[in-house]
Amino acid sequence: MSIHPGLPYCFDEETGEIRLYSPSTIPNASGYLWNQSMLLNVTCRGFANSHFMQPEPATYSAGPALTAKTFLQPEHYYYQGHPGRFFYIKDDSSGLTFSLPFEPMCKPLEAFQFEVADAYVCWRISHLDWLFELKVTLPKEDVLEMWQLKITNNGKNERDLSIFPCFNIGYQSWMNQEATYCTRSNGIIANKVSPYQKLEEYLQQKDFKELTFLRASEPVTSYCANLAQFLGDGGWTAPDMLQHDRLPNQDAVYETPVAVLQHKKRFAVEVVKDLRFIFGAATELQDIQRMKDTYLNESGYLAATSDYQQYLQQHSSCIAVKTPDAELDNTINHWLPRQVFYHGDVNRLTTDPQTRNYLQDAMGMCYLDPGYFRRALLTALTQQQQNGAMPDGILLHDNASLKYINEVPHADPCVWLPICLQAYISETGDLALLEEVLPFSDSDTPATVAEHIELAMQWLQSHQDHRHLSLIQQGDWCDPMNMVGHQGKGVSSWLSMATSWAFQIWSELLLHNNNPGRSKFWSEQALTINKNINTYFWHQKWYGRGITDAGRLFGTEQDSEGKIYLNPQSWAILSQCASEQQQESMLKAVFAHLHSPHGVAMLAPAYTAMVEDIGRLTQKFPGVAENGSLYNHAAAFYLYALYQAQLSEEAFKTLKQIVVTTEQAMAKQQLPNFVPNYYRGAHNLHPKYGGLSSRLFNTGTIAWLMRSLTEQLFGLKGCSQGLLVQPQLPNHWPQAEVTRRFRGYVIKVRYERHRDVKNLQLIFNKQQLSGNLLKTKYLSDKNDLLVLLPSEAST
Amino acid sequence: MSIHPGLPYCFDEETGEIRLYSPSTIPNASGYLWNQSMLLNVTCRGFANSHFMQPEPATYSAGPALTAKTFLQPEHYYYQGHPGRFFYIKDDSSGLTFSLPFEPMCKPLEAFQFEVADAYVCWRISHLDWLFELKVTLPKEDVLEMWQLKITNNGKNERDLSIFPCFNIGYQSWMNQEATYCTRSNGIIANKVSPYQKLEEYLQQKDFKELTFLRASEPVTSYCANLAQFLGDGGWTAPDMLQHDRLPNQDAVYETPVAVLQHKKRFAVEVVKDLRFIFGAATELQDIQRMKDTYLNESGYLAATSDYQQYLQQHSSCIAVKTPDAELDNTINHWLPRQVFYHGDVNRLTTDPQTRNYLQDAMGMCYLDPGYFRRALLTALTQQQQNGAMPDGILLHDNASLKYINEVPHADPCVWLPICLQAYISETGDLALLEEVLPFSDSDTPATVAEHIELAMQWLQSHQDHRHLSLIQQGDWCDPMNMVGHQGKGVSSWLSMATSWAFQIWSELLLHNNNPGRSKFWSEQALTINKNINTYFWHQKWYGRGITDAGRLFGTEQDSEGKIYLNPQSWAILSQCASEQQQESMLKAVFAHLHSPHGVAMLAPAYTAMVEDIGRLTQKFPGVAENGSLYNHAAAFYLYALYQAQLSEEAFKTLKQIVVTTEQAMAKQQLPNFVPNYYRGAHNLHPKYGGLSSRLFNTGTIAWLMRSLTEQLFGLKGCSQGLLVQPQLPNHWPQAEVTRRFRGYVIKVRYERHRDVKNLQLIFNKQQLSGNLLKTKYLSDKNDLLVLLPSEAST
Repeated sequence: MSIHPGLPYCFDEETGEIRLYSPSTIPNASGYLWNQSMLLNVTCRGFANSHFMQPEPATYSAGPALTAKTFLQPEHYYYQGHPGRFFYIKDDSSGLTFSLPFEPMCKPLEAFQFEVADAYVCWRISHLDWLFELKVTLPKEDVLEMWQLKITNNGKNERDLSIFPCFNIGYQSWMNQEATYCTRSNGIIANKVSPYQKLEEYLQQKDFKELTFLRASEPVTSYCANLAQFLGDGGWTAPDMLQHDRLPNQDAVYETPVAVLQHKKRFAVEVVKDLRFIFGAATELQDIQRMKDTYLNESGYLAATSDYQQYLQQHSSCIAVKTPDAELDNTINHWLPRQVFYHGDVNRLTTDPQTRNYLQDAMGMCYLDPGYFRRALLTALTQQQQNGAMPDGILLHDNASLKYINEVPHADPCVWLPICLQAYISETGDLALLEEVLPFSDSDTPATVAEHIELAMQWLQSHQDHRHLSLIQQGDWCDPMNMVGHQGKGVSSWLSMATSWAFQIWSELLLHNNNPGRSKFWSEQALTINKNINTYFWHQKWYGRGITDAGRLFGTEQDSEGKIYLNPQSWAILSQCASEQQQESMLKAVFAHLHSPHGVAMLAPAYTAMVEDIGRLTQKFPGVAENGSLYNHAAAFYLYALYQAQLSEEAFKTLKQIVVTTEQAMAKQQLPNFVPNYYRGAHNLHPKYGGLSSRLFNTGTIAWLMRSLTEQLFGLKGCSQGLLVQPQLPNHWPQAEVTRRFRGYVIKVRYERHRDVKNLQLIFNKQQLSGNLLKTKYLSDKNDLLVLLPSEAST
Repeated sequence: MSIHPGLPYCFDEETGEIRLYSPSTIPNASGYLWNQSMLLNVTCRGFANSHFMQPEPATYSAGPALTAKTFLQPEHYYYQGHPGRFFYIKDDSSGLTFSLPFEPMCKPLEAFQFEVADAYVCWRISHLDWLFELKVTLPKEDVLEMWQLKITNNGKNERDLSIFPCFNIGYQSWMNQEATYCTRSNGIIANKVSPYQKLEEYLQQKDFKELTFLRASEPVTSYCANLAQFLGDGGWTAPDMLQHDRLPNQDAVYETPVAVLQHKKRFAVEVVKDLRFIFGAATELQDIQRMKDTYLNESGYLAATSDYQQYLQQHSSCIAVKTPDAELDNTINHWLPRQVFYHGDVNRLTTDPQTRNYLQDAMGMCYLDPGYFRRALLTALTQQQQNGAMPDGILLHDNASLKYINEVPHADPCVWLPICLQAYISETGDLALLEEVLPFSDSDTPATVAEHIELAMQWLQSHQDHRHLSLIQQGDWCDPMNMVGHQGKGVSSWLSMATSWAFQIWSELLLHNNNPGRSKFWSEQALTINKNINTYFWHQKWYGRGITDAGRLFGTEQDSEGKIYLNPQSWAILSQCASEQQQESMLKAVFAHLHSPHGVAMLAPAYTAMVEDIGRLTQKFPGVAENGSLYNHAAAFYLYALYQAQLSEEAFKTLKQIVVTTEQAMAKQQLPNFVPNYYRGAHNLHPKYGGLSSRLFNTGTIAWLMRSLTEQLFGLKGCSQGLLVQPQLPNHWPQAEVTRRFRGYVIKVRYERHRDVKNLQLIFNKQQLSGNLLKTKYLSDKNDLLVLLPSEAST
């Protein structure tokens, strides 16, 4: 790995590590770490967001004002005073001060490197003949950040240095807050009582982790636990207290706390000093002592980092690839499966994930650990009602309740059952799952998974209008489309298509499950829906998005804003309602209206004013989120549909727009370590902002990416007998390699294009196979599959 | 008025204006302005809190993160990035920059004066041969701040100056936020959609004032509406954009907005320029245009300021005094009535004031405009249930609902009816009020005010235990005392005493109302309660605070924390349950345990850990709010009780501790323009913080101060026949003067101490009166009352 001039970052092909050499080119570039208890997202400049679950999200490090409890917001604003993990440095010889990693002083540093790795985030910074190596990682369970700062004197003389770790604790309570230094722990301990007024809240929160602590591995020269005192009139860029030789040893006494320590050290030439800090939350002082004993010594630290590495790597992706596109390989091999695992592991740090998200996130886990999906499906189905209805969110904790958007009735939860299950069955062939028996939320009378899903399909059917179109209630996949059908009449084209596709999938699974009668029933239902979709939603050149309570078809040429929505076109392909002519016409319209340099928009033109028969969606900022952004979840549906339609070249272009590449990183202002929820759309209104990332790493996109890559791009999809090989590699790839884990086997797949190959040929362990099926029964310890392809795929 | 060396501020005896000459001695010193729609609180350094009602509190100027919706919090923390109204100044000749009034650059200024007046807040600042006169006021109705900046070139040459008003708009929505410059309006207009998720919320907020605007009286050289862009790496103390000759004319495009304008001006020698700005909230652009037309011209501005002055001065206090204590006079004549009017006028900016606050705040208005109390009492009683129960809060708006603390059941609302009514009847003699007829919240069957109150007394009686002690439910006057009686058994000594007093007052009013039978009944009930109070709550040397559900008497010598509470001792005097010996003993204990240099504590020692049979109170920070602060509302009860007990000297000392004086202003860190909710207690734990003001100007204290001053200190209390004259002037006052407005008359009262006077003598219009009653029938256009007092009052 070396610095490539002109590229915003570089990466290590072996480990996936991404390195950025400036705090200013992508100032909000960040790495995120999580464990079973918490999430830490830290930017290259040192700002940080940290959350832990008790059971709802809480934090031990906050800003200077009491913030609203809300979900993670897009394009998060990092402001002066935002929580961060900073190290003020004072060169005691010269008196010069600066801060690491960059904030809050923002002084230019001679050399800067920010590195995002699987299990840690680190910096390597040289300044004034000092070398600073700063690193943060997590243990696998505790609510704790482990920081390490190695300092080397590369100067020619013995010198003194004062190091001031400055970690925000923040204003979190008007009831009780304080912080003080604890000599026994070389550190600052803050305490608070999370504010409340009702008796029942006391019972919920009396065992909260109210302590925040910063504990150093070495004795401390001085401290300041009082934010206002520390900053004084100088503020974050020049705190008053740094002007003195020592900090004032000041507590926070019902004042906003902060954890600032001073380590004053003498460094001989070339001497390296290694400071360690633990920062986190605890219920009692004993917890802090335990964590100190566990993590703050060399061997404990090493054991914890090794455990954490193993924890993150407990699941491998079902595909490891080597293609001509090294950037894409890095995403596929390292960052995408990591993001899928993050979703499956901690459920977006909610106790009531939306049912749609919960099932799709679990679908993504089919490509890492299919057992996860199995358990998640069973969890979800036990929360189904006997009438087939699925709740808006799945409760994952005894004290959990449906909150925020889950209090709004959506019509789509049931469709995700067969759609996501299909991916699992393809990957595992585990039809036995359908015979598992489990109860309902409102009845202990058990039923099989197959019966549960049958009821869900019946629920969908019973929530159609007289035209067999699906009623939208206060939203479908699109949460804020809340006023199309709130009077009980409006219908959704997307949900009608999704229902048709769900019925078709279920019909197919019923065939495998020896129920041809019901199978036929659902496939006929799907045909009826498809016919009516075409009757009522097709308008001139594409499908509209819905019909309002008042009977208005919207998402058509007749609208000045929101003329065309992406999802109905994508899902028309999936539900197979579109004729060849319709498909051609609507895709042409998608290209014309929705394509942009940075990806495909969810709708266009973005709304600039409230449309009262559509709803909240139209009030979102134009080009942001559901209002016409390049919404990656929708783009991933589109990708999957394009591959279903064998439009491989177009699909590959879409894939490359969804992920972050060096070419687009500056416009997107993001590193490729995750796929964000959206990129800004409405390019025509705000061209400078086109492609800007939401920087939200919670997204349904990634499950569909895993599915598309596995089943479509590399064409290694499971079926009852084995692996169907149907690759759709881009034309410009002469070859590619995939290591495919499949039902307990490892298959080394090599694709090669040859001029003299007319049709796909499979050569398995040097034997040519007929057709494109690699049967499971042929698999053994060594499975080499050569896939020969024509030199140019048809598009 | 002149600067007094050594005094933290000075004031103008005529106008009441308070002037502070440094931004650092009392950095959070502030002035508050309000009108029917809004509240603006602005500190000497330029930080600001602004709220307006739609109908719940909202703001047009916020910080950099989405804040929790909550009530005003004590000891509010002003941080870098907190909303403010700043003017960056760049001397274009020298390139020197600084900021007005002091934040955010916090550069030392050559001369600084901050002035708090009745109807405006202003600054007079000299620096680098420039004079800046900055002033803010409000109109009487709109949600609007009117700012004026007058600049004088006191240098010897023509010079250029760039003036950059920088007003926060802040991050308020993840749905939609933007800001841009509008040439037509010389200003920046920000728009947002307040975030919501539920359909019903849309209907509530679709007419919200979502626009924030800053509009200048003069054309603008350049602008920046984008906070991150404006600040850059330099941050608030050195914004990047100030380094350029012009601002970048940058919008906020789904980014955190700010309003920064540049006025680049050439100043000839001694030339004065006058810039005006309006900053506020609007629903539509037309509103902004209307406000510009109304307020942004010289004549409109002058008319508006005159109207606003009249608005604030629409009610005069019933007493205007001239005593040997000029500081106290200033408080009594200017700031206290202003604070009383603020409470009565806007009800603490809530739509559901706590019943207790609503009635006491209205009681304060008896001394400004008794008709206000009459209306408030009727409003409150129409929300009473037929069973006599009063709600926890009084709803003042159709869309209002009981929120926050009003969702917790408290047992005390009924007691305030006779207690506050008594003050009104004394002041007005308006017994006819008792015969007004009005409905209940749960019944249209009307009843008289007397019947309503009778029912309330019956409700109190029915909520006693078998010992005739009052059940506390989840709180009484003390909101967070929520776990004493939540199981339905715990009782409150304070509430028992308050009930006894309420019964006694009601008994007396019934006598006046010709109902001797019921009068006797309630006075007997009071005696029974008093007896049982002594049986069950008296412990060794003082009264305990309550008996828990489990039967534990607390607030006694046996407790290690919360040994003694102030309220039971004060109210034992009011309810007359204490014998002379008990009174002496308990007051001795109050002196020993609760007195401190800055006032009297609500309890001591403050709790340092949760006591589960007392509740949330014990979790508050020691010395803060109800947990042992010098809680002024409780101190005012104590004051009133001391005067009732004729302990005039002790009462006067307490009075002087409640208000802010120059002597205590530094410890309290407050100006005397309002009486705060509390000063810090727990002097023993945190001596450095003793006396520190909460800076909350919402407090029940002031109504009781008005009552004590009028009825007790100056002893000019109304009765059915006229004015009872029973002054309790401090011994060291040789004379005093009061102009007393009373039932439509103005009485000039002059008090004189004479050696040869043995008992109080009244000389009215030069005629000696017998006794201490000035009958109303004697009053006419000219009423001069000379009150002759012995040279030393008995104590």
